[in-house]
Amino acid sequence: MTTGEARSAQEPRWLDETEQAAWRGYLDMNVRLSAQLNRDLQAAAGLSHADYAVLVQVSEHPKCRMRVLELARALDWEKSRLSHQLSRMQQRGLIDRANCADDRRGSFIELTPKGRRTIEDAAPTHVDSVRRYLFDLLTPEQVDTLGAITRQVLDQLDGLCASEAPTDCSEPPLV
Amino acid sequence: MTTGEARSAQEPRWLDETEQAAWRGYLDMNVRLSAQLNRDLQAAAGLSHADYAVLVQVSEHPKCRMRVLELARALDWEKSRLSHQLSRMQQRGLIDRANCADDRRGSFIELTPKGRRTIEDAAPTHVDSVRRYLFDLLTPEQVDTLGAITRQVLDQLDGLCASEAPTDCSEPPLV
Repeated sequence: MTTGEARSAQEPRWLDETEQAAWRGYLDMNVRLSAQLNRDLQAAAGLSHADYAVLVQVSEHPKCRMRVLELARALDWEKSRLSHQLSRMQQRGLIDRANCADDRRGSFIELTPKGRRTIEDAAPTHVDSVRRYLFDLLTPEQVDTLGAITRQVLDQLDGLCASEAPTDCSEPPLV
Repeated sequence: MTTGEARSAQEPRWLDETEQAAWRGYLDMNVRLSAQLNRDLQAAAGLSHADYAVLVQVSEHPKCRMRVLELARALDWEKSRLSHQLSRMQQRGLIDRANCADDRRGSFIELTPKGRRTIEDAAPTHVDSVRRYLFDLLTPEQVDTLGAITRQVLDQLDGLCASEAPTDCSEPPLV
């Protein structure tokens, strides 16, 4: 697994050329695909990918409401970043905050009717972009492999999570 | 390609179940793998993934220096985010800023000796994490397919880039 011959067991197992290309490709694809989806959402619906991610998360919860802490964990965002994002979205009338009198586990984020219309209007554009820049380019076998890779990685991270932290640290999908 | 039967040509081509699972898995993997790499880098070297990304970019450039604008494009970060990040890294002695008297295209970011030592010390930990959470889980065929998928997506985005913007908009890999 190492690139040299006389290395000790402690020598880092550097990536070989194929792995390096796949890893850099993966990172580069993440950045550029996300940027392109962002541009398409912005042009079609005036939404950033961050706006969209929040709207999707909340819209998929019962009654279209979700706790702030739960949302922060689902998006894996720092609290301050999420707080700024939610303030901007509230100012634009996409979401609202609600407190639950008999529950001290924090406030809820709710979709407003405008927020719901916005996510419903944006979804077709978004799925079209996801197809154009990803799924339309892949064979069914490649889609299967992509799905398998993500399951293997997530299972490994779940296992780590279970062994290191007995409390729930699973996270629902981003969008 | 649609989930219904009597839909018009204008109906969004929603993702089928397999595609949906692959897409959500991909997004979820991005978030959680990045978070795990972040935690490992933080624990082993006191670096965030953002610190690491900046250090890698600059270290791979000739003389370990890089223009701020070039760095912003490579990382696909907004200027304000990069500016805050660079200020913090400068305060910690990892990078320095230099102006070029005969060149008005903006200032350079340079690695300090401490920055270079830090990236060299962090790299073995990082590659170990990347192996543990990704490559050790995959067959050689899956690695090939991952590489192929990323190339296809990046080629498609390059083509879009070339047809929409004649100026250079290619971006070097993130780390």
